[in-house]
Formats: sequence, C-alpha cells, structure tokens
Amino acid sequence: MKEVRLALVGFGNVGKALVQLLDAKREILNQEFGFNPIIIGIATGSHGMAINPSGLETHKAISLSEEGKNLDSLSTLAQPKSIIEFIETCPADVLFENSPVNHHTGQPATDHIKTALQSGMHAITANKGPVAHAYKELVALADKNQRRFLFESAVMDGAPIFSLFRGPLPAVELKGFQGILNSCTNLLIELMEQGKDFEEAVDYGKSIGITETDPAADIEGWDAAIKVAALCNVLMGGSITPEQVKRTGISGLTPAMIQQALITGERWKLVCSAKQTVNGLETSVEPQRVAPNSPLYSVNGTSSFVQFELDTLPGLGILESNPGPKTTAYGLLADLINVMRGA
Amino acid sequence: MKEVRLALVGFGNVGKALVQLLDAKREILNQEFGFNPIIIGIATGSHGMAINPSGLETHKAISLSEEGKNLDSLSTLAQPKSIIEFIETCPADVLFENSPVNHHTGQPATDHIKTALQSGMHAITANKGPVAHAYKELVALADKNQRRFLFESAVMDGAPIFSLFRGPLPAVELKGFQGILNSCTNLLIELMEQGKDFEEAVDYGKSIGITETDPAADIEGWDAAIKVAALCNVLMGGSITPEQVKRTGISGLTPAMIQQALITGERWKLVCSAKQTVNGLETSVEPQRVAPNSPLYSVNGTSSFVQFELDTLPGLGILESNPGPKTTAYGLLADLINVMRGA
Repeated sequence: MKEVRLALVGFGNVGKALVQLLDAKREILNQEFGFNPIIIGIATGSHGMAINPSGLETHKAISLSEEGKNLDSLSTLAQPKSIIEFIETCPADVLFENSPVNHHTGQPATDHIKTALQSGMHAITANKGPVAHAYKELVALADKNQRRFLFESAVMDGAPIFSLFRGPLPAVELKGFQGILNSCTNLLIELMEQGKDFEEAVDYGKSIGITETDPAADIEGWDAAIKVAALCNVLMGGSITPEQVKRTGISGLTPAMIQQALITGERWKLVCSAKQTVNGLETSVEPQRVAPNSPLYSVNGTSSFVQFELDTLPGLGILESNPGPKTTAYGLLADLINVMRGA
Repeated sequence: MKEVRLALVGFGNVGKALVQLLDAKREILNQEFGFNPIIIGIATGSHGMAINPSGLETHKAISLSEEGKNLDSLSTLAQPKSIIEFIETCPADVLFENSPVNHHTGQPATDHIKTALQSGMHAITANKGPVAHAYKELVALADKNQRRFLFESAVMDGAPIFSLFRGPLPAVELKGFQGILNSCTNLLIELMEQGKDFEEAVDYGKSIGITETDPAADIEGWDAAIKVAALCNVLMGGSITPEQVKRTGISGLTPAMIQQALITGERWKLVCSAKQTVNGLETSVEPQRVAPNSPLYSVNGTSSFVQFELDTLPGLGILESNPGPKTTAYGLLADLINVMRGA
C-alpha cells in the first residue's frame, strides 16, 4: 500500500471535515485507489502548528483545535518559525492549502502553494485567490516540478467544475457562462424576500454562520467576482483579476425593489456572467431580475448554479444544493484522488 | 497520425450530425487527441448500406440519404445481407449503434453491439435499450474482448452523466436521484399550460418534430422509465428493467388539473426518481406538482434535468437546455475520444 503524506495549512471547518472524510473513505482509498493517506503536518493561523513524519494523531488535533488550544505539543520536530518554513520542513507529498482568501492579492495562499510546488509537493486548495491571481504562474511552476496544482473546491465547493472540463467535456469551446456563485448574497436576498430588511438579513445570516463577520466581500460582489475570474482564467484562457470584472453588489437592493419583483413573479439574483466577444472576455457581477423560466430562479438559500454555453452543448448547467464544509472537503478529496491517478 | 475507422448503424439526424461534427472537430482530434476518424461503413434501416474500407464519401452519403435514395452505390464491397453481417464484414475499429430504441427488449441494438464487440470493435451508442436491458452482459463482453462499451448519449443526450461518475466523482456513493428525463412530455405539459388541450398539444408537438408519430412511448412514461433503469443499472448497481419501474404517464393530466396547479404557483412535471432503500432500489416515473423552490420547476421545453443525492454532495444537479441532434452527436464524439484516450 502506497502511503501518501499530507500537510494541511489551515485547520478550520474545511480542514477538519477533510480529516474526517479521509477517515470515512479510507477503505475505498486503500482498495479502489491503492493509497493510504496519513496526515503528517497541520499549520493553523492562530493555534500553532505540528509536524510528525510518522503521522499526527488527528483526533487529538481536532480536539485541541475545538478547545481553542495550541497544536504545538503534537509536534515531534523543531517548531517552524513561519508557515513558509512549515511547508519547507514538512516531508509531505501533498499540501492542502486552506488559509483564508484574500480577494485582492491571492496572498499568502499563492506563496504557500509556490513553496509547496518548489519543495516537490503537489498542491491542492479550496482557496479562490491563487486561482484568480496566479493560475498561469502556478500551473507553469507545477509543470516545471512535475507536480499538480488542483483547486476543484475553489468554485462551487465540491461540485465538479474544473474536473468536468479536464475530463468529460473534451474538444469543446466554452463561449460563456452565467450563474449564481455567491451563496451568502443569495441567502440574504431570500431573507429580504421573506420580509427582512437588509440589516436584519445580514444579522440573521451572521447568527446562523452563513454571513462572515465582515460580510463586505460577499455583499459588494468580490467573492462572486473572484470566482468569475477563476473560471475565466482556467476555462476560457483569460488573464483577468477580480478588479477587472464589472461589479455591482447587492447593497443597493431595497425591500421595495425586492417586493416589486415578487409581485411580477420575478426574483432578484446576484448574477455572474462571462462571454467571449470579438473584443475579448466580457465579465460582470450584478443584481438582475430573473423570471421563473430561468434556471437561476429556483436557486435557493446557499445553493449555487452555473450554466455553461458550449459550441457543442447550448446550455449545460451544474447545480449544487445545500453545500457545507463536508462538500468542500469532498472537492479536496477528489483532487487528491485525481493527483494519485493522474486524472 | 493514427487512423480510426468508424462504422455507423443508423443514419438519421443523429448519425448525420455525428458525421458533420467529426469534420468540424477534425483539427482538434488530430492535434490534441492524436487520431483521425474515417467513416468506412454506414448501414441504414431502409436505405441500404455501404462499406468502403478506404473511407466513404460522407457528403454523398448525406445527400443520398436526404434525397431518400439508397446508399448501396457507395459500397466497394459485396453487399451484406443484414445489419449483423454488415457489422461482421466492416473492418472498423469502432461501431456507432444508433438504431431506433425498443423500450421493451433493447433489440436489435443489443445484438448489434454484441456482434461489434465480438468482432473486435469498440461499441458506442445513443440507444437506451441496450443500457437498460443488457448493461452487465455487454460490459462483461467488452471486458472479455478488451474493448469498450460507452453510451453517454443514452440519457440526457450529450450532457455528461456516465462520464461524470467514471471521472470527476470518485469515491462517492449514489443514494438516489430525481429528474425530468423525457423532453417530449415536458414540452406537452408546457403546451397545456399555455391553454392547449392534450390532443392539440400532441398535434403541435408532432408539427414541430418533437413528438414521435406514435408518441405512446413518451406519453405513457416508457422513455422516462428506460432512462431510470439505465441510470440505476450503471450508477447504482441495479438490475432493473423499464417494466419494473413504477410508472404513470401523463395522459391522465387534464387541462383543469394543469390550470389549478398554475393558480397555486405550481407546475405539473413528469418526475423520474430512484433511491436506495433497505428493500433495494425504489424507482418511479409519475406526474407530480412541483413548487417554484424546486430545481425541476424551471426546466422548460425540451430541456432535461437530474439531481443526484450523493453521500459527499447532498444535491448535484445537471441541466441540459435546448438539446438537438448535434447535442446527441457530441455525446457520441466524447465517447469516441474517451475510447481513444482510455478515459
């Protein structure tokens, strides 16, 4: 049985869900895919880091993290001074980079991934930042080091998007797409449809853990724009940053506008779109009224949806319903399996 | 450049669209996938058949077929006496089986595919019959002969379903699915929503070529049931026939029922579903009222949709909008590419 040594940067809900999913799927990974994953390093943002080349006790790591305690005590090596040094020191085969996103720079995740690739690791991330800001550079670096850089969970969590275009959609030309890619704003608008005003909706979103403490990145459309950039750069040969996406957030939506749309049988949605034109890629994120005959109409709550227009398939839609940390963790696992089988 | 010799059984709209798509994508097939397809045999239901091991003049074949003329004159070999003999005689690498479906037996398509596999060809089909009625047998025969049996276009035309589960969805357990898989009935119900009665809707469907001359297989739910069986047998380890799917067609839907649903903001849809239970697979095809918060609600016209419930992804939906013969042809082409690259 081939052992695959994993290092995790970031150990929040997604990192913990990944550890649990690896355990839940260990038998099929061993038997069907012929490898056994062991976690040998975990680096957190504010609760220390630990490396044990023989394998960390992940149950203990989860307990410590949930109790808000430091992981350093689990380490059998001298403590690295930084996350970069952690990556350079940890003798892993694969790095999972799940640090918080920076919409405007993609850092420090991009540097983490560069360090991993240069250290001979494959790099897998759920972080949109490096995909939107440094995709071409990271793929070139991965190729140079004969390693892979995969990021299925960066857009629509674990729903297969990037692997769909690498695999089941050969010989296609992607002309454009439209979709609902930010679940927070989708939920906020729905709460306003139910009669809450904007502030009440945001407060409720915070209370159930859907809305970030600082929800500006969602509300102003940055999260949607970075996903548009990621899709364009990977699937349409683009080189655009989130700043270059024409962007309008949802803060201009009033309860009156939302009710008026409902009266005419329509709904406001924060619509992402991109299309190839003679002038290059045209991209936008903006609130639009959608009618019941649109596939965007019934995308509720934290679900997300994208419809691709291909030369060979006029409309191929992918819907992800009710995602959570486990869903994101599945995208990371699928990437790991694809690294191991070269898919 | 590796030449790949193709034989086509069935030369209707889909067969012709495949020939045209192969020409349109020839450059990418040559350059990216390293093979060059040539069509060396075409067998039709009622307009003869032709084999030319050096490559048929496909433009002539299309012209003859569109003029309702016989293809025999294009042949450089002695004329086979049957389609089975055509398959045995034609020195092709891949057979595309696109004869009309038989919902209750899967024949003669299953025998065509068996003959192809036994003759050393890969077999690709858009025909649901063999997938629902003989999947396990045909896969075993393909394995024995070290050939492939692929059928992406059998359900939802060219939308990636089967290849999605072979590729981007590793290590998942499929618990069930629900969807709208028959485009004819979906359109008929929509026409009734617009005020037509059942007979008028069927007549209109026939006038625009969506409804078959004998629409019973659609209206009584057989087409939907055979697709449910195909999905269950391939993706959920089932061994069910269309007859075993609990099936209710749409002929009991009255204009009054349809209008009453609309008044309450709902729509009737012919819903396909399957789920794993402690008693085995439970499957059904039946008209159901769906609410606007269902992803089935906005599936219009001839579009189709399926939502999979996986252990790792609570709801993964695939929508195909506005399909046509070109869409089906793309599924066949994707299968051909996957045969050539072993995917």
